[in-house]
Amino acid sequence: MTERITFYTNPQSRGRIVHWMLEEAGAPYDVRVLRFDRGDHKKPEYLAVNPMGKVPAIVDRGVVISEAAAICAYLADAFPQAKLAPAVDDPARGAYYRWLFFGASCIEYAVLDHSMKRPMPERPGVIGYGSYENVLDTLDHALAKGPWLLGDQFTAADVYVGSQIGWGMMMKSIEPRPTFQAYAGRFSERAAFKRSVAHCDELLKEIQASP
Amino acid sequence: MTERITFYTNPQSRGRIVHWMLEEAGAPYDVRVLRFDRGDHKKPEYLAVNPMGKVPAIVDRGVVISEAAAICAYLADAFPQAKLAPAVDDPARGAYYRWLFFGASCIEYAVLDHSMKRPMPERPGVIGYGSYENVLDTLDHALAKGPWLLGDQFTAADVYVGSQIGWGMMMKSIEPRPTFQAYAGRFSERAAFKRSVAHCDELLKEIQASP
Repeated sequence: MTERITFYTNPQSRGRIVHWMLEEAGAPYDVRVLRFDRGDHKKPEYLAVNPMGKVPAIVDRGVVISEAAAICAYLADAFPQAKLAPAVDDPARGAYYRWLFFGASCIEYAVLDHSMKRPMPERPGVIGYGSYENVLDTLDHALAKGPWLLGDQFTAADVYVGSQIGWGMMMKSIEPRPTFQAYAGRFSERAAFKRSVAHCDELLKEIQASP
Repeated sequence: MTERITFYTNPQSRGRIVHWMLEEAGAPYDVRVLRFDRGDHKKPEYLAVNPMGKVPAIVDRGVVISEAAAICAYLADAFPQAKLAPAVDDPARGAYYRWLFFGASCIEYAVLDHSMKRPMPERPGVIGYGSYENVLDTLDHALAKGPWLLGDQFTAADVYVGSQIGWGMMMKSIEPRPTFQAYAGRFSERAAFKRSVAHCDELLKEIQASP
């Protein structure tokens, strides 16, 4: 069991992913908003927590955890009653990790490179994700059956990959394929997702109210 | 408990990471070499296993797992007797995931972008890893105490991140800082690492003997 988690975030960052995950896990947490307009994330107080100067990060039982996907995987293990990961001796655990790492590595950079039109290496094997089309096709195939990446069980991989798909479609960096839209429709209906969005919107209003 | 694992690899690929991990875990496995010169990884037989057409991949108890970091995390959980991951209720589990995802996302792409001299986004927050220097500094800081990323416990995160550091220094895409060299010196002495290297070298010789 865990004590209260300290959650460092900004409502306009990847912190939204962790916000949703904390709500899914039913974790007790205290929010610390870092304002980008005030450079809070580069101040010594925060750099002492996360030397990368990035949000999100959480501190639980004295341990600092950064990287949104890592936080999702951690919370799924720390709150087993929420059933957000297959058991450690379940072979489905392999598929679960596969999609978490596919998100953090393949989706993240395929979408970035594609939207920035960055040059690709000449030897295709050099880049881990292959191609943008390859990544979207793989994801499309994985989500075709549904309702979730692992079938009937909603997991932390859906929080992470779902956030990327939702964000990507909103920013028009991921094409709105029917499979992706149906998936986003499903996860947007989750109570934990709605609570996290409402909380993020409140935090954003507070920031805008005191420039 | 698991049956024999089928391991799809090529000795000149990220399959070397998984090869080392299988040896650390003490997992029973059968190797299937995919020859790039014969296009084995793009043939229908293999695409039916991994539609991304990439190695490494493993199949365990009917489940396909790709992404080298995901395979490392999976094997650490599936072979708990090897103690290659903190327990699921241990706060150190957070640091463990952090380094695995830091490797798959930050190190992988910071090193690629740096060695290819690819253009960086104008807004720094867009790119998840920050900068190449930031990534190496963070890693340097994490390894300064040692002997391993989590202190005394050698974990799957060391297999994955250690492989990246070893490979990067060899390819001169990661500068050989003293901390990195000392770390590589330590993991190169591990029996499982040596066995995996010897096995990879044998596989490479077999390929070269029948062009």
